[in-house]
Amino acid sequence: TVQHIFKEIFKAGLELQEDDHRKALLVSRKKKPEDTIVTVKGETIGDGNPHFIMGPCAVESYEQVAEVAKAVKAKGLTLLRGGAFKPRSSPYDFQGLGLEGLKILKRVADEYDLAVISEIVNPADIETAVDYVDVIQIGARNMQNFELLKAAGRVNKPVLLKRGMSATIQEFINAAEYINSQGNGDIILCERGIRTYEKATRNTLDISAVPILKQETHLPVLVDVTHSTGRRDLLLPTAKAALAIGSDGVMAEVHPDPAVALSDSAQQMDIETFNQFIDELR
Amino acid sequence: TVQHIFKEIFKAGLELQEDDHRKALLVSRKKKPEDTIVTVKGETIGDGNPHFIMGPCAVESYEQVAEVAKAVKAKGLTLLRGGAFKPRSSPYDFQGLGLEGLKILKRVADEYDLAVISEIVNPADIETAVDYVDVIQIGARNMQNFELLKAAGRVNKPVLLKRGMSATIQEFINAAEYINSQGNGDIILCERGIRTYEKATRNTLDISAVPILKQETHLPVLVDVTHSTGRRDLLLPTAKAALAIGSDGVMAEVHPDPAVALSDSAQQMDIETFNQFIDELR
Amino acid sequence: TVQHIFKEIFKAGLELQEDDHRKALLVSRKKKPEDTIVTVKGETIGDGNPHFIMGPCAVESYEQVAEVAKAVKAKGLTLLRGGAFKPRSSPYDFQGLGLEGLKILKRVADEYDLAVISEIVNPADIETAVDYVDVIQIGARNMQNFELLKAAGRVNKPVLLKRGMSATIQEFINAAEYINSQGNGDIILCERGIRTYEKATRNTLDISAVPILKQETHLPVLVDVTHSTGRRDLLLPTAKAALAIGSDGVMAEVHPDPAVALSDSAQQMDIETFNQFIDELR
Amino acid sequence: TVQHIFKEIFKAGLELQEDDHRKALLVSRKKKPEDTIVTVKGETIGDGNPHFIMGPCAVESYEQVAEVAKAVKAKGLTLLRGGAFKPRSSPYDFQGLGLEGLKILKRVADEYDLAVISEIVNPADIETAVDYVDVIQIGARNMQNFELLKAAGRVNKPVLLKRGMSATIQEFINAAEYINSQGNGDIILCERGIRTYEKATRNTLDISAVPILKQETHLPVLVDVTHSTGRRDLLLPTAKAALAIGSDGVMAEVHPDPAVALSDSAQQMDIETFNQFIDELR
Repeated sequence: TVQHIFKEIFKAGLELQEDDHRKALLVSRKKKPEDTIVTVKGETIGDGNPHFIMGPCAVESYEQVAEVAKAVKAKGLTLLRGGAFKPRSSPYDFQGLGLEGLKILKRVADEYDLAVISEIVNPADIETAVDYVDVIQIGARNMQNFELLKAAGRVNKPVLLKRGMSATIQEFINAAEYINSQGNGDIILCERGIRTYEKATRNTLDISAVPILKQETHLPVLVDVTHSTGRRDLLLPTAKAALAIGSDGVMAEVHPDPAVALSDSAQQMDIETFNQFIDELR
Repeated sequence: TVQHIFKEIFKAGLELQEDDHRKALLVSRKKKPEDTIVTVKGETIGDGNPHFIMGPCAVESYEQVAEVAKAVKAKGLTLLRGGAFKPRSSPYDFQGLGLEGLKILKRVADEYDLAVISEIVNPADIETAVDYVDVIQIGARNMQNFELLKAAGRVNKPVLLKRGMSATIQEFINAAEYINSQGNGDIILCERGIRTYEKATRNTLDISAVPILKQETHLPVLVDVTHSTGRRDLLLPTAKAALAIGSDGVMAEVHPDPAVALSDSAQQMDIETFNQFIDELR
Repeated sequence: TVQHIFKEIFKAGLELQEDDHRKALLVSRKKKPEDTIVTVKGETIGDGNPHFIMGPCAVESYEQVAEVAKAVKAKGLTLLRGGAFKPRSSPYDFQGLGLEGLKILKRVADEYDLAVISEIVNPADIETAVDYVDVIQIGARNMQNFELLKAAGRVNKPVLLKRGMSATIQEFINAAEYINSQGNGDIILCERGIRTYEKATRNTLDISAVPILKQETHLPVLVDVTHSTGRRDLLLPTAKAALAIGSDGVMAEVHPDPAVALSDSAQQMDIETFNQFIDELR
Repeated sequence: TVQHIFKEIFKAGLELQEDDHRKALLVSRKKKPEDTIVTVKGETIGDGNPHFIMGPCAVESYEQVAEVAKAVKAKGLTLLRGGAFKPRSSPYDFQGLGLEGLKILKRVADEYDLAVISEIVNPADIETAVDYVDVIQIGARNMQNFELLKAAGRVNKPVLLKRGMSATIQEFINAAEYINSQGNGDIILCERGIRTYEKATRNTLDISAVPILKQETHLPVLVDVTHSTGRRDLLLPTAKAALAIGSDGVMAEVHPDPAVALSDSAQQMDIETFNQFIDELR
């Protein structure tokens, strides 16, 4: 029928248009050959030097965050992470302090002159978060929460986007494009391990993703060594591998007393280990 | 130190408490041995008989939905699916008609006396959706979008929860618990294939998940044969397997003219194939 | 250079030739549209009716095998399985009775008028095995042990080939082709679960592989419900699904006293469960 | 019954004994804390310095191997790889030159004073191989070909054991134990990528496996950057990561003219790229 033919033509046109878009994703090297550098309180992520984002898994108290911040500052670092909204598998696990947690982070960051990175999980919270954090983190479980990506794309704040637990590299790039397509191009990608059959590590660090992402996009690429391995004894070796392969930096968890942490106690570094960790990587 | 010891005790107490919760998840058979039956416009899902949720991948127009609704009604079925908010890998793929799509579904459902199932992707839309849909679907990409789960748990409307692309069965059960923990126990689980290395199918249908979920929880369990296989030629055989293994029903996509569908054209049935599909399964 | 051009032409020719071979694999439906029926002591596997291959994981003693054989015979079945050469992850696990095991199987099979299926793991043993077994089994770990496949292809004895732990369907078909290419076309394929991230089951039963293998090849396809699930409680439901989706039969493990079995004790059926299993599937 | 009780006791005893064995695997650090150094023609693999095993995927001709050998020698390297027996997915792909290939390797190695590493696939060929190769390679597809492992364990020749395509680290260690348990402790482990859902690379390089294997065993650990990535552009970055994380060396494929290679043409380096590769890693 004529209607059918018309639809086919329309569809072909649509595909052609989509194809054009695809060929020139905003985040792609094809579109923009030079590296994107995301500047956060003077740290220029993507400039070829290693950057470190360190801090506790979850914000538990002012004292806890301050103790880590002090150590971070003492090492000359600028970027402090800490979870206020915690996406947990079970509704009965500690869910984070929420807005209260963001306020603690902000207070500590101001006192120690640091920049704060924290995960936001609800599109409705993005607007508020902007007042408290310097970088909005979008976590692995939300990598294809497109409403959240779009909300993060509409604000004027860098976004750290983690790879989904079983996302392909192409899906990861497309998720970044969701943010960029809304106007926000200050995006940092973060490889954090993928889910495989292997159980010796919490996830399998897909180290090859780093050079591939650097080739395909112009965005900075970090490696989260804590969540990719889930093992304290592997943080330093994997961080070395990440920097050797061309990662723009490393993200890892530090807690003043990991044994009593309310989450991820098996994989956070204590302050002393953190100090050695940074020393060895420099 | 004393403080440390106190923290340890506190943490042990917390774990104990969490453990208790875990042992008696609201969705578990341990908590409630008898089957939950979710009633939607007279269809009693979970009653031991097979139920069918059929309809187009995406709502494209009134005419398209109406044509499928007519066929669904003609086969004596009640449950019509259709996507209004489409989570797509790329921001440049067709994203669905949104609220307009829900209105089309509602209009068609009223005309043909059917119940409507449609995916909601933003917590902020749950309240509105309640006026248009009979079952809120939460898709695979959002299975650990806990804000969305909690929002769905606060309304009085059945929820169809799809298994995440690489979610373990335990994580799937915990996601359902997020909904139930907010008060809404009308939950239907839906196995839709998991991501593996095999590429002959779009995903790998984890058929064993059906009896495991039926054992571990009291909730109805469906199988989405369209997304688990991604192949039109496998819809009927996998539907037979699903019903044989004890699934409470089957979900599949039907489009008046799959070749011109704006999404998933390779895996939707046309009306004639749909008619044969239902006939063979009865 | 001319040499280079010659090489390129040679290579292109080689590829063309390979391509032709590939298009018409001996095991493919393209080459032979009608179903292959493998006849073993009167059982015609691939004839459209369900067939059952039952028996202990490992041969432990004459008494043990005889007890299972008696039960198998009492149900009117013909095909008895039992492992004599056991490929085990650790060199310190029970490795099977070897040739002694084959002799026990042969003796019991003769006494109860059954056919015997047993795994062979060394190409050098194929010739000997022919005197003791009615079907040579090639296990998952050896699916790409091409020397073993070729050796099995050179004898006149049916071969049951199990899918490798992480083999694609295409690799599985190619492995069968290795056997057929040596002259032996009496091949039975056996889906036995693939390795995924999910740990609720020992492997993930890829049920969709059954209709795909039936489409792509003319060979009979069985499902090993024991190794795919690793759980006694899932044997019956998955067997029902296997038969519903078009499998030519089911393979499962039976042991007179699973609790004391020298291998796989958690997943073997006892005689009574076996009796119910067969009754329910008929 | 008494017999049953006896069996249970026997089984418990067996388990206890197995447990003891397991606790002190010959390849484990528990059994032998100091590093094993495998010496091949003066190269001391496992001594803390990086070692390189380079050469063509498959032996095609004397000239081809000699050209690579010359380049390898020119860079001061000692270890030449080349496949004579090629395990290929399809029986119609190039299967290698077999014994003829081993002879070519041997001749070239003698001429250039190099050591030869080549894969053996049939237990029956191990005895012969010993006369031609300096290191017996056991490939990924044969990692659980236990007959082959045992045969390699009975000769006095180093063995390079590759990780299976979907082998866990524990299974990999157990496979090495199969070799060691027969008397041969000169084993080199080789991580070569695991099979995951990600398709941007041929396999997913499990870089974390390197420090884990170094911790759990006393054996040298190499990384095969060619098969783990399957992409020429990733060979150098992944090699850097491998050395940074503590690998004892790197294995990669080199071919005088990759475009016309009879196998793996997309991932082999040409001589010039090889020269840069070595220069950059030193």
